[in-house]
Amino acid sequence: MARLVKKFGGTSVGDIDRIRSVARRVKKAFEEGHEVAVVLSAMSGTTNQLVGYAREAAALHDAREYDTIVAAGEQITIGLLSICLQEMGVPARSFLGWQVPIRTNDMHGAARIAEIEPENLEKCFKDGRVAVIAGFQGIGPDNRIATLGRGGSDTSAVAIAAAVKADRCDIYTDVDGVYTTDPRIVPKARKMDKITYEEMLEMASLGTKVLQTRSVALAMKHGVRTQVLSSFEDKPGTLVVGEDEIVEQEVVSGIAYSRGEAKITVVGLKDRPGTVSHVFAPLAKANINIDMIVQSAADDNRTDVTFTVPEDDMLRAVKALEERRDEVRFDHLLHDGSVAKISVVGVGMRSHAGVAQKMFDTLADKGINVQVISTSEIKVSVVIDDEYTELAVRALHTAYDLDVD
Amino acid sequence: MARLVKKFGGTSVGDIDRIRSVARRVKKAFEEGHEVAVVLSAMSGTTNQLVGYAREAAALHDAREYDTIVAAGEQITIGLLSICLQEMGVPARSFLGWQVPIRTNDMHGAARIAEIEPENLEKCFKDGRVAVIAGFQGIGPDNRIATLGRGGSDTSAVAIAAAVKADRCDIYTDVDGVYTTDPRIVPKARKMDKITYEEMLEMASLGTKVLQTRSVALAMKHGVRTQVLSSFEDKPGTLVVGEDEIVEQEVVSGIAYSRGEAKITVVGLKDRPGTVSHVFAPLAKANINIDMIVQSAADDNRTDVTFTVPEDDMLRAVKALEERRDEVRFDHLLHDGSVAKISVVGVGMRSHAGVAQKMFDTLADKGINVQVISTSEIKVSVVIDDEYTELAVRALHTAYDLDVD
Repeated sequence: MARLVKKFGGTSVGDIDRIRSVARRVKKAFEEGHEVAVVLSAMSGTTNQLVGYAREAAALHDAREYDTIVAAGEQITIGLLSICLQEMGVPARSFLGWQVPIRTNDMHGAARIAEIEPENLEKCFKDGRVAVIAGFQGIGPDNRIATLGRGGSDTSAVAIAAAVKADRCDIYTDVDGVYTTDPRIVPKARKMDKITYEEMLEMASLGTKVLQTRSVALAMKHGVRTQVLSSFEDKPGTLVVGEDEIVEQEVVSGIAYSRGEAKITVVGLKDRPGTVSHVFAPLAKANINIDMIVQSAADDNRTDVTFTVPEDDMLRAVKALEERRDEVRFDHLLHDGSVAKISVVGVGMRSHAGVAQKMFDTLADKGINVQVISTSEIKVSVVIDDEYTELAVRALHTAYDLDVD
Repeated sequence: MARLVKKFGGTSVGDIDRIRSVARRVKKAFEEGHEVAVVLSAMSGTTNQLVGYAREAAALHDAREYDTIVAAGEQITIGLLSICLQEMGVPARSFLGWQVPIRTNDMHGAARIAEIEPENLEKCFKDGRVAVIAGFQGIGPDNRIATLGRGGSDTSAVAIAAAVKADRCDIYTDVDGVYTTDPRIVPKARKMDKITYEEMLEMASLGTKVLQTRSVALAMKHGVRTQVLSSFEDKPGTLVVGEDEIVEQEVVSGIAYSRGEAKITVVGLKDRPGTVSHVFAPLAKANINIDMIVQSAADDNRTDVTFTVPEDDMLRAVKALEERRDEVRFDHLLHDGSVAKISVVGVGMRSHAGVAQKMFDTLADKGINVQVISTSEIKVSVVIDDEYTELAVRALHTAYDLDVD
């Protein structure tokens, strides 16, 4: 017997028939003798409709009232799933965020979970009942509903799993697991049985939108074994776990890519302390998210700084820098909005030399020019011309022996 | 400066434009210096949709889960009205039932309000803010959402007005007040400026569906001055108040009628103690609501009992009696599904003789046969053939000098 938390998203609870399918899945786990807590999103479309109402009422609105409005969506689905489970003979009861309670900080609209008191859920398990919990919501220090921001239900599920010390947190999605790379680009991509938290974090922040980055970080912090699996098929997905659970670690686990990036180079900066800080201050003020940063070697007391930003922010970034030209003191700016970031990810590379070299060789063989390089302990990322994205991903997938036979 | 509770129903908050109209009305009262609490229903249609979902999930369902689902409707409208008020510069905040808190008993789905703690609302008034409160919902002893049954928002409003000792409770509806009778039947019907609780109770339970009977009874119990007025026009409605507030009391205040009634006569009962109890036991068991009951004078140790039931329940009532024929011991049953109840209502008739006589004379003049008579301190009701309903109402309205000139 295990204790399981199962999270289903909006499409999985889109109508009563689908909610019944979820109930059948939960029933199966319950009848196998497991203690089960279910975390639900709102019906797909509901949250958008409620957000639309709030915006129609006023473009700028009180985040506390917004939270009250949008939290209604999960309230509906948890009641409906509880009814469907009871109808199938499975004892169940619903919990709103304030009933658990899931305590958050006071950042309404994008709250963070501060604490989950497990007593009520423990009692529910002890009574032999399934706990059906509203995702995405909690209660703030002001005793008002606080929501966790869009997609926060993954985070709810992982946090609840941590609070009740669940054996596993199953996140049901519209994909059947985490792949070595995007199967739409590489048909030979392989579904991984297991991936480490660290790798999943890198993959998640690099466009593999299977799990919210935030929920992976939380799972890593609390050591919650998290499974990504399909809500439509009945087969195991990918387990996100600690390194110790993975016996034979591949050197490289996957190839991630991210399109829609832009590259900006600030040319001819005076090379002295504080120069880089002068470059990024106006960008921080403009709330522009910087990703990779590379400073080229100084030559004749002058240096260049290259960085990447989301393509949508490129022109704003250029404008912010031009406006502060006198303070920042640079010669001129270069920008290129059609670049992509390609990353090779794997915890095994910590103990293996030559991973980066193989990446550069492979790309060079295909005639792909590497524009920027950035490395971390478990990944190597490069910026290339966006046109070469598919070619680069396929070549690297093969080079690191990730193709299925 | 007064303290006011204002309640708006589903059609008044049916979309954002209408919610904005409500906000303008509330703003006006707020800017006149009043302390204002607003009680809202769900958007028209929302509650039906949510009830539909619950029924689709399972025909018989846990009332606690049902309550969780349907309470989502008011949660949405209170957030939206708060946003609209803030947008107009009126400080406002929303309160869910559990946030007030409005404590109920444990009858989920048809809960009764046990207690409203006024402290949070008092603080809201003191802070110079409008309190926007979800109608129809409270929190049960089990710490779960409990709803008051359909139309319960009127009751919420009156109970809140009693708890905060409001000077008046304004119930906005799609009619502009309470009339001496149905204006669709009698064009000369007059809108009353004031009506007593007792009269309103009789009118409400007789088909004048302006206010829920339950909310009138609550207003009477706590002496809450309640105004029924139009949510679409800006003019005074009808005040429901204690007798002391009405200086010149009319003998008869209004003529009420109720169609869809049926009359059943149990003929040839043995006239001895316990006979009547034998008649009504099977009906109580079948959950059939009995209205008027008349027992005719005994003749030769045998008696007849006549009573009225809702027409929809007539055949069930006849069946229930026939099944217990041996116990009840009667000769035969008569039933007539096309009768109407006409009532003359007025607290003034306590001190005036001849009110009933005028009713019988008026009906006789028009050739209308009175089938059953029943009286209370402030009303006289008769059962007549349904075909004569309009004629009877018009004739009585004129006879008691209620027509406007």
